[in-house]
Amino acid sequence: MTHRFLATCRNEPTDRVPVWFMRQAGRSLPEYRALKENHSILELCRSPELAAEVTLQPVKRLDVDAAILFSDIMVPLAAAGAKLDIVPGVGPVLEEPIRSARELRQLRPLEPQRDVPFVLETVRILAAELDRPLIGFAGAPFTLACYLVEGGPSKDHARTKALMLSEPALWEALMDNLADSTLAYLSAQVQAGADAVQLFDSWAGSLAPADYSAFALPYVLKIFKGLEHLGVPRIYFGVATGELLGLLAETSPEVIGVDWRTPLDAARRRLGPSAVVQGNLDPAACLAPWEVLRVKALEVLQFGGGRGHIFNLGHGVLPATDPDRLRRLVELVHDWEPDVRAT
Amino acid sequence: MTHRFLATCRNEPTDRVPVWFMRQAGRSLPEYRALKENHSILELCRSPELAAEVTLQPVKRLDVDAAILFSDIMVPLAAAGAKLDIVPGVGPVLEEPIRSARELRQLRPLEPQRDVPFVLETVRILAAELDRPLIGFAGAPFTLACYLVEGGPSKDHARTKALMLSEPALWEALMDNLADSTLAYLSAQVQAGADAVQLFDSWAGSLAPADYSAFALPYVLKIFKGLEHLGVPRIYFGVATGELLGLLAETSPEVIGVDWRTPLDAARRRLGPSAVVQGNLDPAACLAPWEVLRVKALEVLQFGGGRGHIFNLGHGVLPATDPDRLRRLVELVHDWEPDVRAT
Repeated sequence: MTHRFLATCRNEPTDRVPVWFMRQAGRSLPEYRALKENHSILELCRSPELAAEVTLQPVKRLDVDAAILFSDIMVPLAAAGAKLDIVPGVGPVLEEPIRSARELRQLRPLEPQRDVPFVLETVRILAAELDRPLIGFAGAPFTLACYLVEGGPSKDHARTKALMLSEPALWEALMDNLADSTLAYLSAQVQAGADAVQLFDSWAGSLAPADYSAFALPYVLKIFKGLEHLGVPRIYFGVATGELLGLLAETSPEVIGVDWRTPLDAARRRLGPSAVVQGNLDPAACLAPWEVLRVKALEVLQFGGGRGHIFNLGHGVLPATDPDRLRRLVELVHDWEPDVRAT
Repeated sequence: MTHRFLATCRNEPTDRVPVWFMRQAGRSLPEYRALKENHSILELCRSPELAAEVTLQPVKRLDVDAAILFSDIMVPLAAAGAKLDIVPGVGPVLEEPIRSARELRQLRPLEPQRDVPFVLETVRILAAELDRPLIGFAGAPFTLACYLVEGGPSKDHARTKALMLSEPALWEALMDNLADSTLAYLSAQVQAGADAVQLFDSWAGSLAPADYSAFALPYVLKIFKGLEHLGVPRIYFGVATGELLGLLAETSPEVIGVDWRTPLDAARRRLGPSAVVQGNLDPAACLAPWEVLRVKALEVLQFGGGRGHIFNLGHGVLPATDPDRLRRLVELVHDWEPDVRAT
């Protein structure tokens, strides 16, 4: 029997709406925080046994319908030669931001078997242990470029956009490099046992539609086309992408992740009635009293319509979230029955 | 003759598309940076002669069609009792964030004549000196609440939303306080000589439509209704509000500011054909070579349609912006002639 998560990715009917949470593994879980006392994020990502353990923590605790590989979108870039660290409370910080052809040379084409064997080993461990689907993932080229060019997290990605608009040849070289490496990286994850992949284009929504179309979309298309023959569902997610939904759909993913700003019924009107959507409860709603959260979650389920909908948050779980709240949320989604859906 | 900025606010035809820039005064101008060497932001805001000088700097240098009062959205809150500082490179930081009724008591109802006489004096100086309209401004309640509750700038406004969803009585008391003070503040600016007002609801776009509607919109409505009898144009602006445009329009401002994510023709389709829009070039486009910037600015003008459109950026001028670029942009907008509009 196909698992309900994979069936929904293919827009097949299921017994229940599947549910998982972006950042379900991580700082909201005490068992993760305990591990973090002795290991840095990059250490955890590079130790297959530990990364697998962290991946499994929320599956055991929350009973979500899918596991997502524990890693960081910067891991393959570090493996390909970018000198970076993930600074607690800050995020990825580059020793030498990429703003010229010279700096771009530090970034070799990724060869997954050589550069990220630990990720592939993590995937293999998980594929053997899990009784439900494993989602592999990577950052999308534009979002990766934001970190590489800015040299760290930024509010407006102004340097990145300035480079994008000012130096088309350098931008193309950078984005081609990132697209090729990301395709190789996701393909290797699938070959190692991932059942689906999610491409995180978190900052794509900071682009005006014309700029997204010209400077980001072609590289996503390249990745998704390259993954097609592997036959696993491809999920594409970004924040504040309401205005881009039609363009995101042009990259032909099986599933489109929607942030909480756009109600799922509005999203589906833009994407077409047969679109499979993932989302989209505001992560901050999980900090509210259960009765408030419950009403909001039911709204999301109703907008999702009970078919072609993977329940998720509209962005990652906030660190302050009580895991018991998430567990209850999973139960609520799983208890939402077909006959209730009709009301 | 009514100035073209004010005429456009009222959707009357004009000779040229009016143009000004959010944050046109400030860090992009060397004459501002020179002043900042000897004065903190709050000092500048509290010294009428200096605040007027900073307000006039971009008018002289760029020949924009409107001046906007130099101040900070936190100034009236500091004057009403909030213990805060504006930390260079960080933003407003509260000594005691407002998260309970006890902390809310530090925030007295604003009495502009008593609490912010320096702002009103700045407005009077400017009204006497300027040969073009002066825009007064304030932060909207939700956006102010984000700073007050978080205690400083934040990425996700999670604490603010948690309070909003968890403690409706406290939220209402806080938002009522902010709405009343903001109404008094803007009214006093108009009485002192401001020709229009802009309400900055920068973070409203972080709310899902249902939450915006329940927890933010009523307080904006209260402010705009209270300003109505003064007869000056009211501009309402927020970032990433594409999904909220219909709701923003329910507050009945004369002008709606649109960020760069939503093309102006799409915005007007949601707002209605007679809506007056302000915006919406991506501020990062000003860092691009002139030929790239020029094409993007012309696109904005075309989407704006040459009537009911105030040209602006989609958010504030970035500090790295070359003021000569802005000056050229003003010229481009002013050179865009009616017969060119038809093509």
